[in-house]
Amino acid sequence: MSRLDLSSIPVLKSTGYPEPFAELVDGRTRQALGEAGGLSQLGVNLVELQPGAASSQRHWHSHEEEFVMVVSGELVLVTDEGETLMRAGDCAAFPAGRPNGHHLLNRSWGAGVFLVAGTRVKEDVATYPDVDLRYDGATDSYAHKDGTPYPPRG
Amino acid sequence: MSRLDLSSIPVLKSTGYPEPFAELVDGRTRQALGEAGGLSQLGVNLVELQPGAASSQRHWHSHEEEFVMVVSGELVLVTDEGETLMRAGDCAAFPAGRPNGHHLLNRSWGAGVFLVAGTRVKEDVATYPDVDLRYDGATDSYAHKDGTPYPPRG
Repeated sequence: MSRLDLSSIPVLKSTGYPEPFAELVDGRTRQALGEAGGLSQLGVNLVELQPGAASSQRHWHSHEEEFVMVVSGELVLVTDEGETLMRAGDCAAFPAGRPNGHHLLNRSWGAGVFLVAGTRVKEDVATYPDVDLRYDGATDSYAHKDGTPYPPRG
Repeated sequence: MSRLDLSSIPVLKSTGYPEPFAELVDGRTRQALGEAGGLSQLGVNLVELQPGAASSQRHWHSHEEEFVMVVSGELVLVTDEGETLMRAGDCAAFPAGRPNGHHLLNRSWGAGVFLVAGTRVKEDVATYPDVDLRYDGATDSYAHKDGTPYPPRG
């Protein structure tokens, strides 16, 4: 059956970020809807942010495209241009290779939920303008900006 | 700015379907959100179906993945397995290459809206199990199942 039973899809809290970058996404949970539906080219996640949580460190992708729609609550989109309030139904698109870091923050008093869809491109590199972090898709690993690896997470 | 101004994105009513297959999507309008946001790998459309309208002829893709989330209203998902009611927040995923034709119908008394995201793959072929129709991505054209072209639309 193509329709997804959301109640049966695991709610994930993990992050691959090395310390001290994981703290920002405390309060973020997600359901990997695309994976649950058998998709591989397209990553689709339903993400819930508790007050104070961010969707990710602010980042941009070299090769992968992203699209988000806010489903409920109020979130703040942060980019190089500043901050924009996003409410249910508001959408944003992030073309690949544009060096404009973005993430969503929950500065409200209630939970916020958004749907994010993105293409998966093996050679993708994610750049994090605010912190000493770089993600390399080919090796599926995080490193310092100079390439030095972070210690494995305990 | 990454956030999309939905009020400025054109509402499209056109279909590439040859006659007599266009009638089924009368009452369908869409906004090409991905394109408006500068995306090319990922097609994202916000689609509104008036009562009686379908999202498309029932079809499946050889290479392209699709994901839909109902945003408002009540729609019926039709696949080989039968019919499933889809309400706001309900999602469905359609992996590439699975020969299970799908579309959404609006059998309700009010408009229904859904978001659909799909990868774009040039060599895609769409198969329509219910009608004598085939879509070839390489030539961006519709034909009879035996390959004979349909006359150009007037």
